[in-house]
Formats: sequence, structure tokens, C-alpha cells
Amino acid sequence: MNDEKKKPIGVFDSGIGGLTVVRELIRRLPGEDIVYFGDTARLPYGTKSPETVMRFSRQNLSFLKDKNVKLIVVACNTASSVALPALEEEEDIPVIGVLLPGARAAAAATKNKRVGVIGTTATIRSNAYEQALKEIEPAIETWSLPCPLFVPLAEEGWLDNEIAYLTAKSYLEPLAGFGADTLVLGCTHYPLLKGVIGRVVGDGTVLVDSAQETAIEVEGMLDQRSLRSDGGTAGTIQVYVSDVPYLIKEVGERFLGRPIEKIERVEFK
Amino acid sequence: MNDEKKKPIGVFDSGIGGLTVVRELIRRLPGEDIVYFGDTARLPYGTKSPETVMRFSRQNLSFLKDKNVKLIVVACNTASSVALPALEEEEDIPVIGVLLPGARAAAAATKNKRVGVIGTTATIRSNAYEQALKEIEPAIETWSLPCPLFVPLAEEGWLDNEIAYLTAKSYLEPLAGFGADTLVLGCTHYPLLKGVIGRVVGDGTVLVDSAQETAIEVEGMLDQRSLRSDGGTAGTIQVYVSDVPYLIKEVGERFLGRPIEKIERVEFK
Repeated sequence: MNDEKKKPIGVFDSGIGGLTVVRELIRRLPGEDIVYFGDTARLPYGTKSPETVMRFSRQNLSFLKDKNVKLIVVACNTASSVALPALEEEEDIPVIGVLLPGARAAAAATKNKRVGVIGTTATIRSNAYEQALKEIEPAIETWSLPCPLFVPLAEEGWLDNEIAYLTAKSYLEPLAGFGADTLVLGCTHYPLLKGVIGRVVGDGTVLVDSAQETAIEVEGMLDQRSLRSDGGTAGTIQVYVSDVPYLIKEVGERFLGRPIEKIERVEFK
Repeated sequence: MNDEKKKPIGVFDSGIGGLTVVRELIRRLPGEDIVYFGDTARLPYGTKSPETVMRFSRQNLSFLKDKNVKLIVVACNTASSVALPALEEEEDIPVIGVLLPGARAAAAATKNKRVGVIGTTATIRSNAYEQALKEIEPAIETWSLPCPLFVPLAEEGWLDNEIAYLTAKSYLEPLAGFGADTLVLGCTHYPLLKGVIGRVVGDGTVLVDSAQETAIEVEGMLDQRSLRSDGGTAGTIQVYVSDVPYLIKEVGERFLGRPIEKIERVEFK
């Protein structure tokens, strides 16, 4: 096993929602070490300007590179939408976002070529999902909307009550008029609200969650570059954050689906 | 008119909600120049740890001191609750928060000595309002609750719809059992939701908004220290922020109640 293969995979997100991507990575690639960085001191990214999201993303990437990672996953839809093209060009190691895998899965799922996309204000305003979908399949028509209340609802744990339902209804009722058969959940927090979103859009609409698709893409890229760890033992997970707010461990473990031994705080200069 | 009097008043907040405090300052002290800093790149503070709120507050304060201000207003309830006592000790210029003026107004308003306090998670967990109320009047009993959905509701402009009403009801129904006759709106955004909050708690409950009380306290402190500007012309307002997100000018003008000529972005090293 050469040294390159032994290196960890780096993952960053604006917070700890990106641990859902780590969960899928572990399922698919159990032998890989993972270094995660959650920018909890400066979250959310989804309400901020492209320039600021770009600046934060560069700092996060530089932190992960110092950890000697072999590949970086941008597990944040906003950073993937706003910053990824520039980051890919600047970097000499592979950088994968959650956006393209999600767009590919949606393009494969839609039968009537009508796709809805929901995400943060920054993600939707970037038009990145729409552009990616059009590039994959020019015949696809899109309808998109920012749903700013979904993140705080998910964090409050109001996943399936009357308020969550009315909020989803308020945002998503126009989707029926558009006639989409596929809806991209373009934010790591939104899958927690799958229940109420599904009730509003109905059984006929496929809900696309990017985490799983991203793990498949990471696996493919590691194999293609002969970077896959061939050690037989289970990989380790190191979790770094820029702030340790109340209940972070509990919420993080809910996203990751397993215990987190240690959460380390780091501070950028 | 001496040089000290001519200096501006510095005001900072995690975002632009603190412009409601600036609005009250202008009403009461129309001749004062004001330098405002909104930390829009790192907002919100209310979900973050005391250590991080302290670190951000020190940086904001240092930025305002570089602008040669004569007094600093911490127009953020979270920073006032978590960081103010330490900041006051460290600084050689007067620092005033929104917390004490709000607590004094609540203590003066309550007849049955039962006061409710709502705010961000960080504000409520700090117990700062409770301690301040007890110090003013030991007989006061408090009931307090974080209401994390109120800030995103106010920013979404959902101020008086069914979702806002149900959210307020879900948070505030227990207040009736406690029997408070006074409720402190311990976050700059909450006064925007006064309508639905009032419908839930009923006419018998006084809602305390700190912005006005803080302006009175600033006036008193300026007079006490002979720092009040005695120029006859209207003061200027300079607005600095750490990020310029979508619609910031429109939202800022709604909070300030008048046009903002220019919003300047600054970046901390």
C-alpha cells in the first residue's frame, strides 16, 4: 500500500450537516480515514454573498490540505454551487462537490424532463443546479426556489409537525403547477424534512438526496486514480469545527449515525 | 465644542438588526454621528458558543475603536449577554449593551413581579437577563425560553401569517401558565413579530423592546460625561458590514426606517 493511498479524505461543510455525506462515505468506503471540518463559527453560508462563501471555502480547503488529504469533498451545497469551479482550477488535488452528483441523479430520475430544485438563497441564486442539469440534458426544464426556513426547522427538530408541514406547503405548492416529477433537495439539512416535503409534493415526485450520489462519485474517482485505501481495517474519523456550540455532539451524531469520539475546535488566524 | 464631543458613537451587532437601535439613537440624539458595524459574514451569534461570541465581539469593538468613537453600543442581545461584562472591564471607553436597559424597563413595567424573557439560545443559556432582573428587584420571578425560529421568520418577512402565529403559539403558550404580565423581547429581530406574539400572550402582557430604552441610557451617559455633541446639524451614519448579501440594503433600510446611502464591506485579518 503506497503512501498516497493511506492519506485521508478531507470533507468540509459550513456546519455539521455535511456529516450525512461522511455517513455515506463510510458505508461505501469503510477502509478510508476521513478528516472533517465544519465551519460552525461562521455558518450558515446559504444567506451570504458569493465572495464571502468563496473566501471561507478557500480557508477551509487550505486547512484540510495541511492535514495532508488525498481528495477533498465539498459537502456543502452552497459552497459547491458558488465556489467549486474556481477551487477545482486552483487546486492540484481532486475536489468533488455535492452538486454534480445530485444533478446527475436528478437527470437520470426524471421521466418528463421537469425538475424542481430547492436550496439556500445563495445556492438558488447561483443557478448552478440549473446549469448542471441543462448541460447533462438540454431538454430538462427547471423550477427552483430558496426555502430559508427549512434549515432552522431541521435544527429545531421540528421535522413533522404542523408548522413544518405548512412551511413546506407554502414553499412547494407552486411545484405542482410546474409538473416536476423530480425534486432535488439541494441542501444537506433538507433530507431531514423528507417526510413533510413528500406529503406536500406527493408520491409521484422522486426526492433526490445528494449524499449517496456523492459517495459513489468519490469511490469512482479514487479507483480511477488508484488512490483507494487497500488496508483491511476500518478507517478513522477526525472531526474539526470552528465553534463548539451547545449540543453539537448530539446533533452531529444524529447526522453521522454513529458516536463521535472527539470534536476538536480550530481557529483560523 | 471640544474634540471628544465631536467623535461618533460606535454601534455593533451580529447583523443589521441592530439598526433598530440606531433608529432610536437618531430620534433621541439627532446631532450625533454614528458608525455602525454589522458582522453579517459571521451572523448569527445566537446559536454559537460564549467563547466564539466573545472573540467576535472583541474584534468588532476593536474595529469601532479604530474609527475613534467616544462610546460603544453593543446592539446585539447575545453579545450583550455573553460578552459585555468582560468588554466593559477591558475597555477605557464606555460600553453600553441592550440588556440592562431592557431589564430595567421590564422591572419597571411588571406589577405581579413575574417576567418572561425570550431570546436566542446563547442569550437564554447565559441567564444574563434573569440575573439582571434579580439584581434590580430580587422578588422578580422569571420564565425564559429560546425561540430560534423567530429570527429566520423575521428575515423571511413572515411576520403575521399562520406559520408565524403557530410558531409563536408553540413557543409561548407555556407563558400563560407561568402568569407573567411582562415579556422581554430579548433579540433585535423579535419586535418585528410583535403582532403575532401579542396575539398569543394577550393584551394583558407588556412587551418590552430594548432599543428605545438603550437610546435613553446612551443619552444619559453622554450627558453625565459631557460627551454630547452640541453641533446644530444632523449627524451622519456610516454603515460597515463584513458581508454584503442579497437584499442587505433593502432589509437594512426597513430596520433603520430611512435610506442608507452607502454600505461598506470590511474584512478582518
